[in-house]
Amino acid sequence: MTHEIRTQVAIIGAGPAGLTLAQMLHLQGIDTVVIERQSQAHVRARIRAGVIEQTTVDLLHEIGLADRLRREALVHNGFYIRFDRTTHHLDFHRHLDRHAFVYGQSELVADLIDARHATGRPLHFEATDVSVHDIGTDAPFVEFVVDGRAHRIRADFVAGCDGFHGICRQALDPDRTTVANRTYPFAWLGILARTTPVTDEGMYCAHPDGLSVHSMRGPHLTRQYLQVPAHTDLGTWSDEQIWRELRRRSAADDHPELETGEIIERSLAPLRSVVTDPMQQGALFLLGDAAHIVPPTGAKGLNLAISDACVLSHGLGHYYATGDHTALDRYSETALPRVWQAQAFSWNLTTTLHRLGDDGFDWHLRHARLTRWTSSVHEERALGEVYLGLPFPTPWRPRDCRML
Amino acid sequence: MTHEIRTQVAIIGAGPAGLTLAQMLHLQGIDTVVIERQSQAHVRARIRAGVIEQTTVDLLHEIGLADRLRREALVHNGFYIRFDRTTHHLDFHRHLDRHAFVYGQSELVADLIDARHATGRPLHFEATDVSVHDIGTDAPFVEFVVDGRAHRIRADFVAGCDGFHGICRQALDPDRTTVANRTYPFAWLGILARTTPVTDEGMYCAHPDGLSVHSMRGPHLTRQYLQVPAHTDLGTWSDEQIWRELRRRSAADDHPELETGEIIERSLAPLRSVVTDPMQQGALFLLGDAAHIVPPTGAKGLNLAISDACVLSHGLGHYYATGDHTALDRYSETALPRVWQAQAFSWNLTTTLHRLGDDGFDWHLRHARLTRWTSSVHEERALGEVYLGLPFPTPWRPRDCRML
Repeated sequence: MTHEIRTQVAIIGAGPAGLTLAQMLHLQGIDTVVIERQSQAHVRARIRAGVIEQTTVDLLHEIGLADRLRREALVHNGFYIRFDRTTHHLDFHRHLDRHAFVYGQSELVADLIDARHATGRPLHFEATDVSVHDIGTDAPFVEFVVDGRAHRIRADFVAGCDGFHGICRQALDPDRTTVANRTYPFAWLGILARTTPVTDEGMYCAHPDGLSVHSMRGPHLTRQYLQVPAHTDLGTWSDEQIWRELRRRSAADDHPELETGEIIERSLAPLRSVVTDPMQQGALFLLGDAAHIVPPTGAKGLNLAISDACVLSHGLGHYYATGDHTALDRYSETALPRVWQAQAFSWNLTTTLHRLGDDGFDWHLRHARLTRWTSSVHEERALGEVYLGLPFPTPWRPRDCRML
Repeated sequence: MTHEIRTQVAIIGAGPAGLTLAQMLHLQGIDTVVIERQSQAHVRARIRAGVIEQTTVDLLHEIGLADRLRREALVHNGFYIRFDRTTHHLDFHRHLDRHAFVYGQSELVADLIDARHATGRPLHFEATDVSVHDIGTDAPFVEFVVDGRAHRIRADFVAGCDGFHGICRQALDPDRTTVANRTYPFAWLGILARTTPVTDEGMYCAHPDGLSVHSMRGPHLTRQYLQVPAHTDLGTWSDEQIWRELRRRSAADDHPELETGEIIERSLAPLRSVVTDPMQQGALFLLGDAAHIVPPTGAKGLNLAISDACVLSHGLGHYYATGDHTALDRYSETALPRVWQAQAFSWNLTTTLHRLGDDGFDWHLRHARLTRWTSSVHEERALGEVYLGLPFPTPWRPRDCRML
């Protein structure tokens, strides 16, 4: 027998988008049920990039989710760019008095899960056979199975926060949705290694032969990446080859050579840009990776997920306070301009930092842009403005929120 | 019988690069002969873009060539960008306290010819059968014919200022030269028309279907352009079609419709980016369009020609003052970074303002960049810095110039 649940908003996916939305709705007195396909242990361990904008941190602080983050995150002023064997620091904080925060996504998700548990509201892990129904009506429902038992959530709205490979984006009618996308002819070969970070903030090395990225997880733990051709077979790279190539691309005259060490983990990530438009249909709203993908260059993915949650939380708050669904109807057009700014920023970084082709024009053009970034304070400020976070499109709760 | 001429620097081409170089060398007491393939009347009438950077105007003023320019040029603060039927003004002067000057290239060339005549030094028009010889030796010579009479200039150096289709760039050994280039799948269909300019400064209209450009030559004379496919046949466009398309692309809610009128002239210009590296070989130095081509977007061509002349004048001045040819040997590597900055700027404007393809990603990406340019003062300043002119790589004459 199916277990019936009634709530206002069914949230599919317990990543940053879903859990932040849940918290913002909870604070407005809106009832939610969150379901997640993976186990709690898996979600807490899922390694993802962790550069968090000042804008995002400010929001998390406002909704009470930034206590540990603000204690434990590495506070960065910007990042390094190395080219022509010379290291340049883009110090955005100096110009804009704001920071970027390095805090593993798994840490943030752990904080968000703890906050959810503290509200006593439902959060179901290991939900299988998830499906969304009747989103074109005002009585949508979500079905899933937990511990062999079938559940059905009847809700006013469904928030699809289950990522690019989730079921929610597939629930949209393709005839009423456009999906703009770009693929890139390269991927990131990533390693997690027991080595000391080469610089005190993240670094992009724009070598004529391709990008290398050097970021840190701790005082003796680094995450580093190599641009490799798309569809590279991870198995064809030995540890020695990886270190040799990381060293070659990051070689500089103003720093000692990269430290090498044990490689704990390796991965291959394709790069792509995707935007679904609109990000909503009927009672279903897509957030974060379910709606759009950015390449990792520029670290915008997590921040966009929170930005979407903020916009949807505002629209839902307004609806439940007044019955007016105008803001909800405009969710997509409100959220998309900031999504496209992040796409344009990521595109700018991606096409400037990666080797794109053999065309003799390419490296010189990239070199000229790198020179501008590292020599013009106006360029540095313009980059920093987006890197540290453009303002969110809306506050997270409407003025007329009944909980104010 | 061949008429023999002896000089220090033979200058081929009486455009902005050649004539400015001639003046700068004259002021340093260095003897030059200038030859030009076209007639004086043709050169004085040759219509080209005429947006001159503050940096260029400052130099022209310093060498006594900016008197009429500073009296008669239109002084612009920036330019307009129109998209989404809305007009935005990029006011670079407000931020940077510098200007751009609109002054037809033909006017500038007329001033430069007058200045050359005033020095009493030779300037030969209608020189045919021009050829350059022995550039790999220290006794290069240039041969040409004027009025049916053969001439030979024996010089220490040859300055190739005869443009992209001139003979000088063909004199370089292709095995020791790289030519980086990009072509674009579109061209500019240009008209000269008796109409009132739509705005008080130039305007780019970034329509999803393609760019239109609206610039002025006088209170009732405009020069306007349409992005059209490369290899378009000019004859297939009627005047009515041109006006219809210019109106459609420039339609705005905040300005009246474009005025139409008599079209006096029409032209089709391909867009391309070319950089020759090195810009020198032995005794031959290339300047301006002979060395590099930028697309018209951003109006950098004339300014780069003057920048090259400035660098070469500095190197020649140092050589004749001291006998040291180090600066001359480094002409190309000194000039090229600024050339590449102009290429990157033109590329940025070109790829943001033109329709590039049918890819759904394209317009949104362009739209996001246009939005940033017109909403972030940092972006506006970064653009303005290059538009109004980055500093020249060298002063026009060395410290040790004997005429100082």
